[in-house]
Amino acid sequence: TATTWTLINENVRCKSTLALGDKEQEEKQAVGGGPTKNEKGINSYWGLEPTKVTKEGGAEWKWTCFRPWEAYKADLSIDLKKHHAPVTLLDKMAYWTVKTLRWPTDLLFQRRYGCRAMMLETVAAVPGMVGGMLLHCKSLRRFEHSGGWIKALLEEAENERMHLMTFMEVAKPRWYERALVFAVQGVFFNAYFLGYIISPKFAHRMVGYLEEEAIHSYTEFIKELDNGSIENVRAPAIAIDYWRLSPDSTLRDVVMVVRADEAHHRDVNHFASDIHYQGRQLREAPAPLGYH
Amino acid sequence: TATTWTLINENVRCKSTLALGDKEQEEKQAVGGGPTKNEKGINSYWGLEPTKVTKEGGAEWKWTCFRPWEAYKADLSIDLKKHHAPVTLLDKMAYWTVKTLRWPTDLLFQRRYGCRAMMLETVAAVPGMVGGMLLHCKSLRRFEHSGGWIKALLEEAENERMHLMTFMEVAKPRWYERALVFAVQGVFFNAYFLGYIISPKFAHRMVGYLEEEAIHSYTEFIKELDNGSIENVRAPAIAIDYWRLSPDSTLRDVVMVVRADEAHHRDVNHFASDIHYQGRQLREAPAPLGYH
Ligand SMILES: [Fe+2]
Ligand SMILES: [Fe+2]
Ligand SMILES: [Fe+2]
Ligand SMILES: [Fe+2]
Repeated sequence: TATTWTLINENVRCKSTLALGDKEQEEKQAVGGGPTKNEKGINSYWGLEPTKVTKEGGAEWKWTCFRPWEAYKADLSIDLKKHHAPVTLLDKMAYWTVKTLRWPTDLLFQRRYGCRAMMLETVAAVPGMVGGMLLHCKSLRRFEHSGGWIKALLEEAENERMHLMTFMEVAKPRWYERALVFAVQGVFFNAYFLGYIISPKFAHRMVGYLEEEAIHSYTEFIKELDNGSIENVRAPAIAIDYWRLSPDSTLRDVVMVVRADEAHHRDVNHFASDIHYQGRQLREAPAPLGYH
Repeated sequence: TATTWTLINENVRCKSTLALGDKEQEEKQAVGGGPTKNEKGINSYWGLEPTKVTKEGGAEWKWTCFRPWEAYKADLSIDLKKHHAPVTLLDKMAYWTVKTLRWPTDLLFQRRYGCRAMMLETVAAVPGMVGGMLLHCKSLRRFEHSGGWIKALLEEAENERMHLMTFMEVAKPRWYERALVFAVQGVFFNAYFLGYIISPKFAHRMVGYLEEEAIHSYTEFIKELDNGSIENVRAPAIAIDYWRLSPDSTLRDVVMVVRADEAHHRDVNHFASDIHYQGRQLREAPAPLGYH
């Protein structure tokens, strides 16, 4: 699929449109001054003028947290039913850890799937980042190539963060939910970090099962949208640009592509665990890159 | 610059050429068997066939640690002399920290610039990863967009790792050098992690100065190559593919592009520190993406 986007380094004197809201920008410009006075000044000294990015049609790109070339069309044909049957003790531990974690989550959110999705995505974006970071440090320490796994895991983390940015638009977090996310991230980040150091085999298997549960939850979400319990609102603008959805897409379309993403993460993580089960290192098997 | 590369998902029955060396691959195929028996099997179950990537000319892409679309031409026209004059106490602390660290490094490596470059790149790839990871976690906790800074910092880390992969080909590390890297990474990762939490302003400023020193070291490296003290060997194949160098490039060409990379990192980090000096968050100013 050929896509065109344009990158124009704006002249420093042109009015920047991406950096800040127009009004704020005007003020900054009014202040003027030397390199350390305002952003324009810093930019021009360090050569980092805000980049003007346009969409395919020529319309302006509104997002700074991701760029047109990171957008993609989700592969909705992916098999949602695939499952790794837990065989070894480690598999079973990973499976039951996830099943146990599901219990308080169900209790807490019940059928509020929008809120649930938002909250869970703050957790889902942690494993990819931790795994990618640990593999990066290992690659440096051992003077070894990564086989593309650092990138693959960081891309997973990035993708999960985009899920969060999307669901944020649909369900706004309340103060106690924010507090909960703080606490859960503190615990989960450290637990996963330790877990990955002790047994990456276990860590990836667990994420594989987490993704299987995520697929299940998103399927329930779609059912609630279909039976009208949750209003099928219009898709947030960020989701339309990220997954290249048509402009009249709805929340249901968004949940469909997010669910497809989770199925891809499931495959990648079970695959990674399988490689470890063969007694090999991840870098010995090339990572699936750009696998959405 | 228009570039073409092709991605072909090979049929599972085709002989994979990227995964492992041919011989090893043959063996794996000879074993055959179910989903958990060998990589082929895993791949076909999880839908992750090794991707066949070809270069522009149609030749096979030999690297799994990076892909053609990550390669780029370095901007050699960048100003190598730019310097942030330390003004505040924090600036001065960052400046003198770097100057102090330079001292034992000079003593240890003296004029062995190949070895020096290799060793220092194992350290240089840490700050981008730590910063990117901390911003990622913050973005999740606070339900905030990143302004592209997570990606920008992770790209810096990736780029530094590619420097290491390149210099590894020129200077092979000895066992005590490997031991040193282990120790230094352990200390530096944690120190930078803490430093970034306490003061990202300081952390980015320090990296800015580190990059200024790196530019200086690479300039010295080039001098040694020019006066014949270090042999100007042929450029490693990985460097030719990563920076799109001509096939007859030499080590000098590689050091030139690496030095240009460092100048770009210098700009990004001083810019980031300047944003913090204005009392703003990084996410409020869009990150320079794809700034090499
Ligand atoms: Fe997700
Ligand atoms: Fe996921
Ligand atoms: Fe470097
Ligand atoms: Fe650098």
